[in-house]
Amino acid sequence: MDTETSRSLAEPQFDRSLIRWFMRRIGNPRISVRLWNGDEFPVTDERPVACMEFRERRAMFEMLRSPSLGFGESYMQGLIEIHGDLLEFSNEVTAAMTTKRAAGYYGPKIRSLLYALNRNSLDRSQRNVYHHYDLGNDFYKLWLDEHMVYTCAYYDTPSATLAEAQVAKLDHVCRKLKLQPGQKVIEAGCGWGALAMHMAEHYGVDVIAYNRSKEQVAYARERAAARNLDGRVTFVEDDYRRIDERCDAFVSVGMLEHVGLANFRALGALIQRSLKPDGFGLIHSIGRSFPNRMDPWIVKHIFPGGHAPSLAEMMSVFEPQKFSILDVENLRPHYARTCEAWLRNFDSVADKVAEMYSEEFVRMWRLYLAGSSAGFESGTLQLYQVVFTPRGNNKVPWTRDYMYPEETGIH
Amino acid sequence: MDTETSRSLAEPQFDRSLIRWFMRRIGNPRISVRLWNGDEFPVTDERPVACMEFRERRAMFEMLRSPSLGFGESYMQGLIEIHGDLLEFSNEVTAAMTTKRAAGYYGPKIRSLLYALNRNSLDRSQRNVYHHYDLGNDFYKLWLDEHMVYTCAYYDTPSATLAEAQVAKLDHVCRKLKLQPGQKVIEAGCGWGALAMHMAEHYGVDVIAYNRSKEQVAYARERAAARNLDGRVTFVEDDYRRIDERCDAFVSVGMLEHVGLANFRALGALIQRSLKPDGFGLIHSIGRSFPNRMDPWIVKHIFPGGHAPSLAEMMSVFEPQKFSILDVENLRPHYARTCEAWLRNFDSVADKVAEMYSEEFVRMWRLYLAGSSAGFESGTLQLYQVVFTPRGNNKVPWTRDYMYPEETGIH
Repeated sequence: MDTETSRSLAEPQFDRSLIRWFMRRIGNPRISVRLWNGDEFPVTDERPVACMEFRERRAMFEMLRSPSLGFGESYMQGLIEIHGDLLEFSNEVTAAMTTKRAAGYYGPKIRSLLYALNRNSLDRSQRNVYHHYDLGNDFYKLWLDEHMVYTCAYYDTPSATLAEAQVAKLDHVCRKLKLQPGQKVIEAGCGWGALAMHMAEHYGVDVIAYNRSKEQVAYARERAAARNLDGRVTFVEDDYRRIDERCDAFVSVGMLEHVGLANFRALGALIQRSLKPDGFGLIHSIGRSFPNRMDPWIVKHIFPGGHAPSLAEMMSVFEPQKFSILDVENLRPHYARTCEAWLRNFDSVADKVAEMYSEEFVRMWRLYLAGSSAGFESGTLQLYQVVFTPRGNNKVPWTRDYMYPEETGIH
Repeated sequence: MDTETSRSLAEPQFDRSLIRWFMRRIGNPRISVRLWNGDEFPVTDERPVACMEFRERRAMFEMLRSPSLGFGESYMQGLIEIHGDLLEFSNEVTAAMTTKRAAGYYGPKIRSLLYALNRNSLDRSQRNVYHHYDLGNDFYKLWLDEHMVYTCAYYDTPSATLAEAQVAKLDHVCRKLKLQPGQKVIEAGCGWGALAMHMAEHYGVDVIAYNRSKEQVAYARERAAARNLDGRVTFVEDDYRRIDERCDAFVSVGMLEHVGLANFRALGALIQRSLKPDGFGLIHSIGRSFPNRMDPWIVKHIFPGGHAPSLAEMMSVFEPQKFSILDVENLRPHYARTCEAWLRNFDSVADKVAEMYSEEFVRMWRLYLAGSSAGFESGTLQLYQVVFTPRGNNKVPWTRDYMYPEETGIH
């Protein structure tokens, strides 16, 4: 037997062993693996939910080197393909990782070695980084609901569509804030203005809404004018840190996860300065059940600087200001379903998106949406709505009846 | 003018100045002050809600030396008397302290001097220490509701009596736990067994309830037998740390505040070992809106070793175990009202209590109940109900409808 032949026989055996070792590290998901040479084998004895194909050998090494970045970037580049439903695959892998494996992919020794190897590559090539909010309104219009809400919906009835669940979420937030006609509301991070306009139109309040994105603010202003709400809603194209008004209610939906832990305390101080002594506040944010770092692939490609806090971490917004926490609700399953709805919408316009950007962008975005849905489904991610009020405010309802609509009879 | 005369003129002037200085430190409550020589003066221009009388000069110095212990012990001994309603007085003083004054009674320099002076006296004389749970069933029967519930009630309707509000609280807890017939529930710190019996009788579950107090357990067993519930409720006279069963629901109402921060993590680990993967847990505890120490008088005379945690501190029960927090509700106003109801009941049996113990004991207990009510009314104290489930449990309802009774139509 010549060296060439023995190498070609030994190599797949070695690669299979490496992959089996890696799969044990991530909790042995019920998937099958197909190698670049066509070899396919299941990871467990159970029926695989999907097949993960390594189209080139280097994709396997990339994933081993950096399970999150290496897998994500190889998938984006088409070096890894998922055959079957991407969401089912993501759910299966995430569930295996969260329920069966220990704290990290690797033990501390391998981790620190990899960290040293990866330091450069984490910073290298910005070629694939599409900045999230620079993507433009036309992109988001393709797959968000008609109200352009890019945060967790609230499926208060099982049959709700995405658009209905987004309106239900807006109402849920307004009711939790106990909005009364004539009140002044500050919103920090208002996206395309759906909540601001909903509050003004249906709850009779005046809103000042902050957003740094020029294009989002332009869209929001146009929509507000078309709905004759421009007298009641002021969109300010500025950083939330420039807020210097006083208000009856302070609301921020889907901004805290971009603020960064180091700025939580300053955000709390800003709210304290803004909110009247009998005012109510609500912060709605992606979170975690325990402190942990963001996924490196997500940080690099989707949300640079993001941090999903644990509840204890979130308290560093509130406790230094002695805010009284009135209510916390966890909408985790709702965000899994919201992300799934976005993924289905996105899939139906994928060709168009590929034309606007690239095939790689489409793959990146699909992985982000599927991975996020799986993160909420598995409990890696949580969604907290926190209602609070300044210390000693006794104008607080006795029960939570006020949070639920009249139709239910508990108004 | 001889020395004697000038001293007798100067002294009240000096004492008044001292008291006025002290009153500024505590936010100038709308009260009047009467001195041992009969002199009376208001602290502010507003109508005083009550009069605080120093019957001896040394009581003033005791209070200046240690505002909490010195005042509390002087009141117990009758060296300070409150003319007017004790609860109104407590509410006024606590509100002034929380809304108007800075972090401490005194600046850091005076505080460290007083700390050095007080070190001994904090440990001295145990003569007045009546241990809370050694007081015996007959004492608590005199002024608790008929179900013997010694935790925050839930006034879900404005007209509810204390007994009705206690039953409403038991139901509120049971619904939050989503109890189903046949389930097994562990209760840590069960008092006289009201919740355990309520769960078994109205929700068809089997309960194992832990309590260290021999006398409380004896009472609970007797009551359970009388209600034919002894087959479904097992009262274990032991420390909660000895729990080694598996359960569908874990509940603890009014125990965490006695556990001590250092033991929170171990409590979480115990719950993690006990609770099935799709189980629900509820912890109901006195808390704070920010981390702070207990009042020294309360620690010395009422709850040795107690600690009312902030929400971030409470999270050290849950986050190390990766529990998912589903819901937090703050029942602060309910505890103010509960303590007031207890105070009114207690006042009506004060003569009897004085016979059983002493006049000093009656004064201590009145101050404790009035001060607690004022603590909740002012926001110094909070009451958190936290619902949680093990990581990744997806058998979680979509909305909080399940927490509210059928009559409201949102079941």
